[in-house]
Amino acid sequence: MRKLYELAGADENRRFSPYCWRIRMSLAHKGLEADCMPWRFTEKEAIKFSGQERVPVLVDGTNTISDSWKIAKYLEAEYPDSPSLKLENGEVLFIKFWTETVLNSELVKFLLMDIHDSLAAKDKAYFRESREKNYGKTLEEVVEGREERLPSFQKMLTPLRLTLKKQQFVAGESPGFSDYIVFGAFQWARCISDFSLLQAADSIYEWRENMLGLHNGLAGNAVGYSV
Amino acid sequence: MRKLYELAGADENRRFSPYCWRIRMSLAHKGLEADCMPWRFTEKEAIKFSGQERVPVLVDGTNTISDSWKIAKYLEAEYPDSPSLKLENGEVLFIKFWTETVLNSELVKFLLMDIHDSLAAKDKAYFRESREKNYGKTLEEVVEGREERLPSFQKMLTPLRLTLKKQQFVAGESPGFSDYIVFGAFQWARCISDFSLLQAADSIYEWRENMLGLHNGLAGNAVGYSV
Repeated sequence: MRKLYELAGADENRRFSPYCWRIRMSLAHKGLEADCMPWRFTEKEAIKFSGQERVPVLVDGTNTISDSWKIAKYLEAEYPDSPSLKLENGEVLFIKFWTETVLNSELVKFLLMDIHDSLAAKDKAYFRESREKNYGKTLEEVVEGREERLPSFQKMLTPLRLTLKKQQFVAGESPGFSDYIVFGAFQWARCISDFSLLQAADSIYEWRENMLGLHNGLAGNAVGYSV
Repeated sequence: MRKLYELAGADENRRFSPYCWRIRMSLAHKGLEADCMPWRFTEKEAIKFSGQERVPVLVDGTNTISDSWKIAKYLEAEYPDSPSLKLENGEVLFIKFWTETVLNSELVKFLLMDIHDSLAAKDKAYFRESREKNYGKTLEEVVEGREERLPSFQKMLTPLRLTLKKQQFVAGESPGFSDYIVFGAFQWARCISDFSLLQAADSIYEWRENMLGLHNGLAGNAVGYSV
């Protein structure tokens, strides 16, 4: 029996964590099934057994693993005969840190209010308080003027755009964990917000379409917005 | 007989092109010797045989290859039994575009005057005219206030810094072309300018020290500044 604890909104089928999407896609990549359990920010007790307070948490038989990077490494080591996530490529770590410190940190400033509005009632106060403390601003203030920030966000995507003009996936001719890392960011946005980030003529848009179709449309069929 | 045409300054031993350094390091990585020929911006005739106007140009027996990316691909294909540059890692392409569109494009704004001042007399007017046309500013205006731009440059290096805190090279446990791509940028700066970019406590500084020592100190012994 395999269980993946994933962040969910008021609608328990709205699964929007970028880190959880990395793992949902990786499990499918390796042909592994899992019960994907909804979890809310304030349900710390439910994952206390993992020794920490965040999702994703994977329970695989007697093994409990948290942190998306560690889970990916675990899956590669535990299931070496299924398709590789290409974690042996050292550059994947750079993709991870670029995504987390450059891409996600700008993206969240578009999404904060949409995330808040989609959360279960019991999570809203926690989310507002913790995020407003981080930013030293209200959620509304952080998100304000997002349309004006879209051109600089687009420019920031240049290395990704040029890469995907030359090859089909970030990892090359077939997807790897680096694709799931970057895709997690865009799927986060798509699952929680109707704010349009990409234009159809963009190589990143095309790649995202491919990613949405992978593994029988796993991500494309998820609760979200068609943007 | 193998020849590499490299950009040189007034001092013909000052070889400072970031693209040429990618190839100089890659040749050494693969244990291949080459005569490294000095070339100046205005010596278009000398490389006309390559069908284009830029260096690096590699002449390997009857093969002539230009463009650092194509040369690296050629070296991998032609010399498969020597240590791999790990170009099969798709993510190397992202590293290339990040380096060229993010790292190099900020770095050059620190270096323009130093490059100009190190050039052969016959190259100076060409360099000033072509670059000032690109920027719509004088070289002096582009470089002005570089000390104030250093903190945002440092911040821009975050994904690289975090990667090199976790592993010894961009490519993982041993260097690959992705390391030579990023190193080319720092070696460009080091060969042409005494402006200090990195602090000794930075993981990027440590990595650069390692890179300077590779292949019997090939890059560390090059004409440049100890910064």
